[in-house]
Amino acid sequence: MRAVDIIDKKKHGEELSKAEIEFLITGYVKGEIPDYQMSAFLMACCFQKLSAQETTHLTDVMRVSGDVMDFSDKISGYTVDKHSTGGVGDKTTLVLGPLVAANGVVVAKMSGRGLGHTGGTLDKLESIDGLKIELEEQDFIDIANKVGVAVCGQTGNVVPADKKLYALRDVTATVEDVALIAASIMSKKLALSNQGLVLDVKTGKGAFMKDLDASIELAQRMVEIGTLMDRDVIGLVTDMDIPLGKTIGNALEVQEALETLQGNGPKDLVDLCTELGGRLLVLANKADSLEEGKSKILKSIDDGSGLKKLEEMVEAQGGSLESLHNLKISKNVFELKSSKSGWVQSMDALSMGIAAMKLGAGRETKEADVDLEVGLKLFKKVGDKVSEGEALLNIYYSDTSKLEEVKKQLLESYTLSDIEVEQPKIILAEVLKDKIVKY
Amino acid sequence: MRAVDIIDKKKHGEELSKAEIEFLITGYVKGEIPDYQMSAFLMACCFQKLSAQETTHLTDVMRVSGDVMDFSDKISGYTVDKHSTGGVGDKTTLVLGPLVAANGVVVAKMSGRGLGHTGGTLDKLESIDGLKIELEEQDFIDIANKVGVAVCGQTGNVVPADKKLYALRDVTATVEDVALIAASIMSKKLALSNQGLVLDVKTGKGAFMKDLDASIELAQRMVEIGTLMDRDVIGLVTDMDIPLGKTIGNALEVQEALETLQGNGPKDLVDLCTELGGRLLVLANKADSLEEGKSKILKSIDDGSGLKKLEEMVEAQGGSLESLHNLKISKNVFELKSSKSGWVQSMDALSMGIAAMKLGAGRETKEADVDLEVGLKLFKKVGDKVSEGEALLNIYYSDTSKLEEVKKQLLESYTLSDIEVEQPKIILAEVLKDKIVKY
Repeated sequence: MRAVDIIDKKKHGEELSKAEIEFLITGYVKGEIPDYQMSAFLMACCFQKLSAQETTHLTDVMRVSGDVMDFSDKISGYTVDKHSTGGVGDKTTLVLGPLVAANGVVVAKMSGRGLGHTGGTLDKLESIDGLKIELEEQDFIDIANKVGVAVCGQTGNVVPADKKLYALRDVTATVEDVALIAASIMSKKLALSNQGLVLDVKTGKGAFMKDLDASIELAQRMVEIGTLMDRDVIGLVTDMDIPLGKTIGNALEVQEALETLQGNGPKDLVDLCTELGGRLLVLANKADSLEEGKSKILKSIDDGSGLKKLEEMVEAQGGSLESLHNLKISKNVFELKSSKSGWVQSMDALSMGIAAMKLGAGRETKEADVDLEVGLKLFKKVGDKVSEGEALLNIYYSDTSKLEEVKKQLLESYTLSDIEVEQPKIILAEVLKDKIVKY
Repeated sequence: MRAVDIIDKKKHGEELSKAEIEFLITGYVKGEIPDYQMSAFLMACCFQKLSAQETTHLTDVMRVSGDVMDFSDKISGYTVDKHSTGGVGDKTTLVLGPLVAANGVVVAKMSGRGLGHTGGTLDKLESIDGLKIELEEQDFIDIANKVGVAVCGQTGNVVPADKKLYALRDVTATVEDVALIAASIMSKKLALSNQGLVLDVKTGKGAFMKDLDASIELAQRMVEIGTLMDRDVIGLVTDMDIPLGKTIGNALEVQEALETLQGNGPKDLVDLCTELGGRLLVLANKADSLEEGKSKILKSIDDGSGLKKLEEMVEAQGGSLESLHNLKISKNVFELKSSKSGWVQSMDALSMGIAAMKLGAGRETKEADVDLEVGLKLFKKVGDKVSEGEALLNIYYSDTSKLEEVKKQLLESYTLSDIEVEQPKIILAEVLKDKIVKY
């Protein structure tokens, strides 16, 4: 087999075998196939597209390029995971994980850090004093078994093929391809032996995918891969035109997650967790219908069992409950007031995410530090009525140097209307292995 | 400017500026832009295609990436060049150059060596004892001025961008693209300041381009580039389904060129030289019409002035006239006889070129040596009548190890018909800057 022949085959639109994809990817990871052949191949893939089967082969070959965590006989019961493609104010994992665990389904999840305008669960968890996000495999499994939910960073050498490929795609204009994106995400998700997976594909201004149809396609491709690899996968395409919930920033989002588990969550976040969680319970055979699953999730908020799971997880991972309930949030607060009256017609999630990043809540580069105490608390979201001089949001800041810029940016993020505006839907589409439903 | 943005722009089908193409190519030659970005760019070009203007920019940027030979004020009069895309038995330069020079038009030509089934003029010239093909620039110019025709190898560092790009294209499945091929050829041709250029684009089984329409497109792209760069360029698409002339092999082909200039040439070779030469004379204002140009070329055969120019060139380049007229050809000859009667319906130029290469007349790899004395002399070509037992061709060989294989291959190259077959046309299409004529 020669790399050039495989590239040529793909260039001419022919379908590659698993052996061919394996030859390329494993050779590339080993350094036997050079960057220049791989980048030509990736560009050919962008034009000729990979079939579902090819994408699945690629995913599987990438998946096994490094450490694979098979806990199928180490964690009892059906285990699940959730993946979000990243957005602004997305604290879903912190709410959903405990609620699902409270219903007897094990959530064994590896999360990531934030980058750019999107936050990351690991950063958020670090707002809790003492909480360890770097867990040894055995500790991770033990906590998942004992508590029912464990969240940690990627341990060991998980999917090195993706790291190497992503770095190359980033500099060769080959990032934007739905099959390559799907393979990248799924290879990492499926490196853990979770049987059930819900995908939360964000769409809109604050998401990587701005376009609904492209987001549905991405969900489709990922569901296809998961299905071909014998996992139970459901994709929800959800709104990220506006931030999720009412907070952006690390400690602020943990606080909101906590309040949500205490029954005081914002409607969009509660709805999203209910829709995702309800489906996970159905996958895990803990509910006979989505309706039953959703009501079980809501019940776990009402009866405090979800909150209890979060507390158990925090403690099991070495975190302080005292800290969880008294999160450090900056004392420097600026109340941003509306300069006119009306109904909030739109909010620019991307711009708000970037504003929060400028405050220090996010990182511009992978190496940057994050200020856990800063961020935004939103009082007004799309559909809300606002009077002139009424507070739109609070800015929690440490450093004043960018405050004026951030204020201006946030004010411009809001568009007000003179007439009443409907509250937006959170779930826009559902992608199952055999159908797509748009809402 | 960032390479990744330029790649992305091309990936999305936008037209690149000269500055962008220059940034990529000069950066690549300097080693500032890595192979992996260039290969992704090249693959994007294969899909999105380069416009005529982009291809011209690319050609020009490549052209000036190394030494450029501007002899516009060093050689008096209109200077011309001919380029062939390579074929089997193609000794055109050795006939055409002297005939054109005999009509007062200077031919200043850099040639190449053969590779695979195609021969190269430099190898052929080396059949003549003493003839130097590595000329200093000043000697090349002096000979062109004095004799009117000079043929040498690439001197110095001509178009290093093409060498580097070609090596990369070869291993990344990006060779096959008409704009990239056109830019590669034209950058080297236009690195010399010849004002007139005829392109002999070979098409058919023995050519790199097997397909007539693809060959016409290549000719078109090259004529466009030349025209946009203020040169006078004409493209002829000519038959290479069967070998050109009646010999394949180095000394054998020089002998055939000599015989052609003595008035004993095969019809296809004479026709091709007349058509190419007639056009060059029109470009150089030495003839008012193609008809006049062609008859002048034929006259230079009849009156021996072409032969005289070849002899003058050979002497000026240090070659022996004694050797030219007594070329060393292997004494080991095998006469291959037809096993049946009929008319020759087809000959496989590729297979015959490979057979000659196996005898040693060509090189399988760039590094291989060539045996100048071996090759084939064809007695029967398409349209000729053959009787059972009559000789199809002579095989001149040195080494007997591959002789049986070659015999078999050559016999299989011929297809005979029971009914009379027409002689094939040599000129299939003509590409001018404003029209295409198919013959």
